Amino acid sequence: MTEIDTETFLADLYALREIGRFRTGVHRPTFSPDDMQSRRWLMGRLEACGLGASIDGIGNVLGRHRGPGPHLLVGSHIETQNEAGWLDGALGVVAGLALARAGLPVDIVAFADEEGHFSGGFLGSRSAIGDLTEAEIDAARNRTDGTPLRAALKTVGLAGISRMQLDTSRYRGFLELHIEQGTQLESAGLHLGVVSGIVAIWQFKIVFKGNQDHAGGTTMAERRDAGLSAVRLLAAIDREFPKVCGPRSTWTTGQITLDPGGYSIIPGCAEVAFQFRDVSIPVLERMEACLEALVCESNRRERCTATLTPLSKAIPAPCDPNLMEAISQAAEQVCPGRWQVMPSGAGHDAQNIARILPAAMLFVPSIGGISHHWAEDTTDADLAFGVRALGGAAARVLAG
Amino acid sequence: MTEIDTETFLADLYALREIGRFRTGVHRPTFSPDDMQSRRWLMGRLEACGLGASIDGIGNVLGRHRGPGPHLLVGSHIETQNEAGWLDGALGVVAGLALARAGLPVDIVAFADEEGHFSGGFLGSRSAIGDLTEAEIDAARNRTDGTPLRAALKTVGLAGISRMQLDTSRYRGFLELHIEQGTQLESAGLHLGVVSGIVAIWQFKIVFKGNQDHAGGTTMAERRDAGLSAVRLLAAIDREFPKVCGPRSTWTTGQITLDPGGYSIIPGCAEVAFQFRDVSIPVLERMEACLEALVCESNRRERCTATLTPLSKAIPAPCDPNLMEAISQAAEQVCPGRWQVMPSGAGHDAQNIARILPAAMLFVPSIGGISHHWAEDTTDADLAFGVRALGGAAARVLAG
Repeated sequence: MTEIDTETFLADLYALREIGRFRTGVHRPTFSPDDMQSRRWLMGRLEACGLGASIDGIGNVLGRHRGPGPHLLVGSHIETQNEAGWLDGALGVVAGLALARAGLPVDIVAFADEEGHFSGGFLGSRSAIGDLTEAEIDAARNRTDGTPLRAALKTVGLAGISRMQLDTSRYRGFLELHIEQGTQLESAGLHLGVVSGIVAIWQFKIVFKGNQDHAGGTTMAERRDAGLSAVRLLAAIDREFPKVCGPRSTWTTGQITLDPGGYSIIPGCAEVAFQFRDVSIPVLERMEACLEALVCESNRRERCTATLTPLSKAIPAPCDPNLMEAISQAAEQVCPGRWQVMPSGAGHDAQNIARILPAAMLFVPSIGGISHHWAEDTTDADLAFGVRALGGAAARVLAG
Repeated sequence: MTEIDTETFLADLYALREIGRFRTGVHRPTFSPDDMQSRRWLMGRLEACGLGASIDGIGNVLGRHRGPGPHLLVGSHIETQNEAGWLDGALGVVAGLALARAGLPVDIVAFADEEGHFSGGFLGSRSAIGDLTEAEIDAARNRTDGTPLRAALKTVGLAGISRMQLDTSRYRGFLELHIEQGTQLESAGLHLGVVSGIVAIWQFKIVFKGNQDHAGGTTMAERRDAGLSAVRLLAAIDREFPKVCGPRSTWTTGQITLDPGGYSIIPGCAEVAFQFRDVSIPVLERMEACLEALVCESNRRERCTATLTPLSKAIPAPCDPNLMEAISQAAEQVCPGRWQVMPSGAGHDAQNIARILPAAMLFVPSIGGISHHWAEDTTDADLAFGVRALGGAAARVLAG
């Protein structure tokens, strides 16, 4: 079995955590100074492993194996959510370094903005499969501060650089090691999860337009309170979605913004960030129809106007059976009987790569299921299981 | 009848609007550079009217009539809500200038932070009646950026200056001219409102603690979604408050903050800014009991913990009958048959001054009821009616 240097692998992970460190996690939003420093750090490590490193016009970092094929593509992303964990994304990229160091003929990729700091989401992996237009780049803005993506690319020196397209003839497939971001492995006392498929995320903005008024001078009957209309719609979603969802569906309101947002001001505008996820397209379509019907009902009953805008509607991605088989065999060798096959509730770059290449994923446990938070963590032992199983799977695929 | 120079009065209002102008409104949060400039502008105008101008250690500006009594105190405040209207507060202060210019023996006051940019609220008028302790000043912070009040006072050069106390023996009462901040006068085709009393505002922070998790990796059953618990409580308030409120009660959720606030993150914390208002203490107490019961119910049913923190609980303030009578007579003289007696749904400095002096208020219409928004406006004709009736009322009281 391929020998992985887990000590250097862990040292790389620790080193990357120091860039943009926040408590025990990191804060590296896409194209922030810390994010760009981490990309430069990665390019240095790729070269040190003997790979040819480059960065493209959307921020994707690629390390290209200099020898003959067959090749595998391995990676994930290295930017993070705000004040988030040290492993999400970073693990899959740094695991690639470990495989290269073990002599496996892999290319290593860090796709830009998997975390969706810019509208559209998955900019890097979508660009690499030819699914990101220049017009989309023109329109994309930072979700936090509104900065146009074009301006951000110019600031970090990536404007005018061409965007790489993955050469499907070069690779036998794509492998992504990731943390589970849930508690299923931990609860079952398992160390590895072989991913069967990745849910699709359908994301929406719901905007309510009412009338901004003084909270004392305007009687309840006169009000057009955008915040109250938003609360009523969200309560209706809470009531109705369980009737149409699938057994593993999730739906989340991540943000509610009342404008202008003062104690004594009736909100004239409310904006809700809403998403749902499932592995089944019919279930996703049922949830969307329910959401649309509830927005229609809101517009019939409320004195504020609700507008539903779909932001992104991905398609679920089943993992490649041959790659899954190789990962399962490697998992059984590394932790006999302590792994399972499971779906991924989170979206990943692999779901995009799966559209042009065989793709598969391997999970390691998340302590307490904590994710997208600086307290996110995984034991060193499980990290080592993960990279060793990934290496074993890669060796099997490349030898096949 | 006292002759008011309405042209200079309107010119003063327009001049004040230029300080911190935002579209057709103004942005002068308490102790901002524009706010301090407006206070210095006011002191200059007071001196130009022959009054002795001073500013005290909490930012109150007082213009003191130099001649013999009897005196009346006239005024309001001049800081504004964020990106708000040009008349709220400013009108009552600038009207004082017009009365002084007409030769009436009035003192003019601009109380600091009526708008509650700092926690506690009504800092200036509460200080002037001896209801603001040094400990409260130590604890107060800016609600937007968290700046301690002490630091803000130091920055604007007010640290260490003594705070004025109103001399009750000096005044026959306090008069405050203000915009209605509602549509009752406009709807009824009236020009003036003689205020019968001022509602009390009871203000609360409701914090929900759950668990921040990844929106895909965490099943619906496992979640502790603080935002969802907040939505459920707010929906319950929407359902239950109409059963306990009075005929003119209002309740408002001005802000909902989900932390950390990303599409793919289950909020670990949610904070709600909530207030209600009424003129009756029993009604206020009924609404508070209902709110407390709903929070208890939330804590029994939800997997997140809700904590209810009262921030301020004012007492309703009835206006002085003799002052109301003088204002009513003046209103009838200025606009025969086109005025009414009405309660104030908004809080005002007069409610604090009413605790130590006879106090009363006069309203002019708000176009479209718009308030706490830059589009707030009143016709020049109604502004002139207001200042002329205020002058007539003051002359009656002083002659009595």
